[in-house]
Amino acid sequence: MLAVAEARERILSALRPVGEEVVPLPQAVGRVLARPVIARLTQPPAAVSAMDGWAVRAADAQAGAMLRQIGAAPAGHPFAGQVGPGECVRIFTGAFLPEGADGILLQEEASADGVLVKVQESVQPGRWIRPAGLDFTAGETLLPAGRRLTARDIGLAAAANHPWLTVHRRPRIGILATGDEIALPGEPLPAGGIVSSNAHALAALVTVAGGEALVLPIAPDDPAAIAALARSGQGCDLLLTTGGASVGEHDLVQKALGPEGFALDFWKIAMRPGKPLIWGRLGGTPLLGLPGNPVSALVCAVVFLLPALAVLSGLPAAPTPTDRALAGAALPQNDRREDYLRARLSADGRVATPFPRQDSSMLATLARADALIIRPPHAPPLPEGAEVEVIRLGPLGI
Amino acid sequence: MLAVAEARERILSALRPVGEEVVPLPQAVGRVLARPVIARLTQPPAAVSAMDGWAVRAADAQAGAMLRQIGAAPAGHPFAGQVGPGECVRIFTGAFLPEGADGILLQEEASADGVLVKVQESVQPGRWIRPAGLDFTAGETLLPAGRRLTARDIGLAAAANHPWLTVHRRPRIGILATGDEIALPGEPLPAGGIVSSNAHALAALVTVAGGEALVLPIAPDDPAAIAALARSGQGCDLLLTTGGASVGEHDLVQKALGPEGFALDFWKIAMRPGKPLIWGRLGGTPLLGLPGNPVSALVCAVVFLLPALAVLSGLPAAPTPTDRALAGAALPQNDRREDYLRARLSADGRVATPFPRQDSSMLATLARADALIIRPPHAPPLPEGAEVEVIRLGPLGI
Repeated sequence: MLAVAEARERILSALRPVGEEVVPLPQAVGRVLARPVIARLTQPPAAVSAMDGWAVRAADAQAGAMLRQIGAAPAGHPFAGQVGPGECVRIFTGAFLPEGADGILLQEEASADGVLVKVQESVQPGRWIRPAGLDFTAGETLLPAGRRLTARDIGLAAAANHPWLTVHRRPRIGILATGDEIALPGEPLPAGGIVSSNAHALAALVTVAGGEALVLPIAPDDPAAIAALARSGQGCDLLLTTGGASVGEHDLVQKALGPEGFALDFWKIAMRPGKPLIWGRLGGTPLLGLPGNPVSALVCAVVFLLPALAVLSGLPAAPTPTDRALAGAALPQNDRREDYLRARLSADGRVATPFPRQDSSMLATLARADALIIRPPHAPPLPEGAEVEVIRLGPLGI
Repeated sequence: MLAVAEARERILSALRPVGEEVVPLPQAVGRVLARPVIARLTQPPAAVSAMDGWAVRAADAQAGAMLRQIGAAPAGHPFAGQVGPGECVRIFTGAFLPEGADGILLQEEASADGVLVKVQESVQPGRWIRPAGLDFTAGETLLPAGRRLTARDIGLAAAANHPWLTVHRRPRIGILATGDEIALPGEPLPAGGIVSSNAHALAALVTVAGGEALVLPIAPDDPAAIAALARSGQGCDLLLTTGGASVGEHDLVQKALGPEGFALDFWKIAMRPGKPLIWGRLGGTPLLGLPGNPVSALVCAVVFLLPALAVLSGLPAAPTPTDRALAGAALPQNDRREDYLRARLSADGRVATPFPRQDSSMLATLARADALIIRPPHAPPLPEGAEVEVIRLGPLGI
């Protein structure tokens, strides 16, 4: 049985980022930049006023002085002339500083009748002036390749005059659920059957993580049918299967795909829930075989699929982020399988309390969980209040 | 000038959740449930095996006993007969427990030749059996209305046999940027102009927060043009404007919308960046007027628009979540405006260090920020290492 960290490393090291596409700026939010965003202009392009008031020659604008207003410079309408001695120009936030001026007399620090302006507070040269390039300068790299774009980044790329951005396309993930016993929600259910939940839960996770999910029809427990559907998923960047991965007689994925040239890397990991995990390559397509059990499938998806999606999307290879919390209950000694306990977090997020029953068939419990407590192999018993490593599920959006 | 908390409360108390729509299950991830998800079946519907092995009568299956295998029960293919004395049925994880059996002999704790099974470890009655309803029972509320659906929730709703879910539709947010000086990215830029970044940054934020953005054409600084465009946005659930909100002579939104019957609630808040913030109602449409400055607009969006989107989406009214961090630098005394300092977080997320220059025109700095440090009005000076309240931007996805 492979350790979780080694399994993850073998998965991630076999994956490469998908190709690029050009998208209109508004569609780039949440996408991963494939090429850096370079500023196409300098912002501000010239010195501008940071306030509403008058552009002045600071030497003239001492308390008590009277200045003559010779024009106005709203934002977007630069004043064409020059500010001479004893003169001023009405100015507004963001407007270019007229030639000759070197200071801003604030609106609140003067009185004006439309022609003459009386200075009440002496002006400091350079004060309330934003120099050219304060925000960024043309040619500067504003956003590096490999960055997932936020709404703020979209604003910055817009300000740098980019109507299009080059991003990695969304990784396309084929999802193949197997099992005679499963049927899609709302469809006739065979006797002894259960409603399929894996495929659409995984599709939702793929979507939230920035991928594009292709849900294949459910494969019955028949090698030929599994093989035919798996072939149809080979155009994907990654093929996920669920079910048919464990050691029982009815575990068919390996049996079905062997004759198709499936190159197995590993199929068993030291993890709970989720011992049977297949990793290999079907032709050119990486294949991740998740357990059929819904809780195991989703926990394995958090631990292995999310980092795999990140690498495919162009982000750095890294484990799913973990954090620290305090155990809300005493924890028993662990065996040789790394354990992922479904847990609730206290309102302040500091205490993680595992649900009393951790049966891997309990999907409602998983949905109510806020975090997974990670118990390494052979971890010693811990008292309540001890520090533990957790994966917080909320921030992952899944 | 209104306090931030009061302004937010006035905004949120004026908003109501938008209506419902029915969406196919896979499209419901990230949406807010408008009606609860009630289990349509019991899961598991009857007692099932939690392991691969043999279904036995525990009383017969003591160490050393030989049992006769009378059939098999793979998942999805229940065994039709009954387990009598001295008999057993081959069983796999998730399969219904045959009538007569009350225990599971684990595969690893027996040896078998296909007909006879030798018990190596005595079986406990009830052990490795999942009772009917362990996960959930028909009629149980699995997911309440008002919950934003995770990928796990989608799996749970699938398992409970729901092909469709009733969610709140996406709130539609009209976005109207104003200003003679702005042009869309890639379009000809007027002399003294700047590239418009607000509308698409706000549209991205609306999208990430689950809304649908309608970006209106840029309005020049002309009351009639602003009024005409604002009218065209009145079908929205909320109309956002940016620019034209402050006290200068060129602040036009109020002037333009007054004759249209705009009912102003407030227009000035004690906040930095972002003093000029308009809130009111244009006909039946709530109108939030954000500052024209991109940093101010986005910070105000984090503080006011995100909670407004949450309420419109059917989530509870609440401020944008805050957290605690340690100040990475000494902080000066604050004046009467609540201050939102752009800050970086240390790798462990515990220390928030404000950028040395907080000029509200610096969009690149905002994009690089990980958090906003909140400084209440008249907050005393704080030494480095003091605890401060922060909004973490990463988990908001914006």
